[in-house]
Amino acid sequence: MMLPTDPAENLATLIRCPSVTPAEGGALSALEAMLVPLGFAVERPTFSEDGTPSIENLYARRSGNGPHLMFAGHTDVVPVGDEAAWKHPPFSATVAHGEMYGRGAVDMKGGIACFVAAVARHIEKKGGPKGSISFLITGDEEGPAVNGTTKLLDWAAARGETWDAAIVGEPTNPDALGDMIKIGRRGSLSGIVTVNGRQGHAAYPHLADNPVRGLMALLDALLSPAFDKGTKDFQPTNLEVTSVDVGNPATNVIPARATASFNIRFNDSWSAETIQAEIHNRLDQGARRKKYRAGRKEAVDYELTWRERPSHVFLTRDDKLIRTLGGSVRAVVGKTPALSTSGGTSDARFIKDYCPVVEFGLVGKTMHMVDERVALADLEGLTQIYERFLDDWFGEA
Amino acid sequence: MMLPTDPAENLATLIRCPSVTPAEGGALSALEAMLVPLGFAVERPTFSEDGTPSIENLYARRSGNGPHLMFAGHTDVVPVGDEAAWKHPPFSATVAHGEMYGRGAVDMKGGIACFVAAVARHIEKKGGPKGSISFLITGDEEGPAVNGTTKLLDWAAARGETWDAAIVGEPTNPDALGDMIKIGRRGSLSGIVTVNGRQGHAAYPHLADNPVRGLMALLDALLSPAFDKGTKDFQPTNLEVTSVDVGNPATNVIPARATASFNIRFNDSWSAETIQAEIHNRLDQGARRKKYRAGRKEAVDYELTWRERPSHVFLTRDDKLIRTLGGSVRAVVGKTPALSTSGGTSDARFIKDYCPVVEFGLVGKTMHMVDERVALADLEGLTQIYERFLDDWFGEA
Ligand SMILES: [Zn+2]
Ligand SMILES: [Zn+2]
Repeated sequence: MMLPTDPAENLATLIRCPSVTPAEGGALSALEAMLVPLGFAVERPTFSEDGTPSIENLYARRSGNGPHLMFAGHTDVVPVGDEAAWKHPPFSATVAHGEMYGRGAVDMKGGIACFVAAVARHIEKKGGPKGSISFLITGDEEGPAVNGTTKLLDWAAARGETWDAAIVGEPTNPDALGDMIKIGRRGSLSGIVTVNGRQGHAAYPHLADNPVRGLMALLDALLSPAFDKGTKDFQPTNLEVTSVDVGNPATNVIPARATASFNIRFNDSWSAETIQAEIHNRLDQGARRKKYRAGRKEAVDYELTWRERPSHVFLTRDDKLIRTLGGSVRAVVGKTPALSTSGGTSDARFIKDYCPVVEFGLVGKTMHMVDERVALADLEGLTQIYERFLDDWFGEA
Repeated sequence: MMLPTDPAENLATLIRCPSVTPAEGGALSALEAMLVPLGFAVERPTFSEDGTPSIENLYARRSGNGPHLMFAGHTDVVPVGDEAAWKHPPFSATVAHGEMYGRGAVDMKGGIACFVAAVARHIEKKGGPKGSISFLITGDEEGPAVNGTTKLLDWAAARGETWDAAIVGEPTNPDALGDMIKIGRRGSLSGIVTVNGRQGHAAYPHLADNPVRGLMALLDALLSPAFDKGTKDFQPTNLEVTSVDVGNPATNVIPARATASFNIRFNDSWSAETIQAEIHNRLDQGARRKKYRAGRKEAVDYELTWRERPSHVFLTRDDKLIRTLGGSVRAVVGKTPALSTSGGTSDARFIKDYCPVVEFGLVGKTMHMVDERVALADLEGLTQIYERFLDDWFGEA
């Protein structure tokens, strides 16, 4: 029987499944068909929650005697955007000039295709790993992410699953394969501040209370001074005001209310709790400042609402995991990858509660764009890196 | 023949005409019916302009030998709001506890009713003024104000009309009849500032350019320092930010654009041109400031658009007009009115280009509100003030 050792063939099969979130699109079935011949026991739990689409997920384990490695990722993809703008149809997996085109090519059907091929080669070569390998694959990473990785982890843990290490196959390399392993992520929090003023005529500002003045005092306090200077492993904490909204079309009317939305990416100087407390402090300070308030003495009347749950900051300190993966990259592409904690959140933030986790995959340049594509050379390169990692990590174990 | 010497009767007639802008509602016809027996030649020009409703206006003149006094105002009224919340129907002119209820009672059918009664009494008593009286009445003061006073003034001037002084009958008294004569108005200007940034992911702020940061730098420069400390006749110049709008619902996206709307009320330290130049200067200075810009060095990329035409600041310096009206108030109510330039703009800003103008009318407390109403005693008081003014102003002439 032919094992799925060719990452390009695996990827073409996956790209041809139009699995735009929340559609399964055949992608999990195609993956299951690759894993069963490799000796994996495959489960396909569907999770549901009011107000979100039900989502199919996949958990596959090949058990062995030794440590347990998880490979995590997603088969869902973002919408294709302007389909007419694509050089090659986004679900065709067309190869041209050494690159395979298709939605999900790098984010992250490509990462899955390579890991499957690496496992197949490792099994062909060694007869199987000296331990267990699991695929934890969701169809809900690009969507609300409610019925995906978090529920799948809970579900597996409830069945007694434990893991020793995890690799997430997201495209972590900015420019070239081997650039960057992600070993942690900043935390993320979003909030909305609403300032309640008093509506009035612009000619009689003393009879009104312009909430924009109060909001400026609050935003000034939120933006400065800097939260920190960064830490050994992390960039400085940064806050961006992502929207300010009043919606008052009348030129001569002072509005009653103003809101601002913000997002903060915080490093390991903080926990979600301490950064929330710091933001409350800054807002309270800003609310008492005289600047902008046009002589008004009472504190700014504001409310703060947190949006969604916070993403917690984390840093992986598993030396064996990081060292082994870094060595595999060096062995295949001849350079030392940066160990980074930059960028947005990923599902690694959920996995880190169960085992040490790192992220390494393809080159992210074209992700979420028209003409998303991957070099065939990168598919082979990543497969070799993953294979080398399996050899070394289980070999070392 | 009965002349319209009773202001309450005149007002009841006018209130019963539902002349919510732009509807004439019978109000100008009712006024015409009062003026014809007093010897006025009445004209009813209608003005039109693309994109605005056509509006009926009224110009009535009673010619005599001597100076020419204009009484200016409007018969249109603002909508009634929540009609069910009115104690008495808004077009019923119901009298209760010495007050007449109705939309327009003080703003400003009441002022017109009193001036008509004053003219009628003056004619009864003296056989007619030693000069000319005109009514310049629009149906478009509360609306777009495009087909009203400005066009009516142009129309009359084109026919050779000139005036020596004007009284606008708007409700100028904050609390009690006789509180305040308006002898000028601040200028008013409105603008929109748009900041162009670069959209991006909140986790990669250095790859984006958050326009909210640039906008904060600009608004900070607009709001401080104070434009001036006020002048002998005017309050300090004041700027209010009336709206800020981004409209970005995504918590993890830095938006591409942010806008702010502002309105500035400026005193006689400035002309519309010098205050516009000052605002440009402040924005240019703000655009170069480093604060809020997160290390970005290029100036904030912004555009400034002026909304509508500016209202020019003016101050009436006609001693005879102000002194005579002040004396009439003192004679009737026994107190000296404040001479003020406070508050919003009014049609006086257009009239001031033709002749000296002051504003004096009823008590404004209930204007534009549910249960707009006027004390019958105030109607009689204002009629006596206007009558005394006619006696003295024409007598002095
Ligand atoms: Zn992804
Ligand atoms: Zn009015």
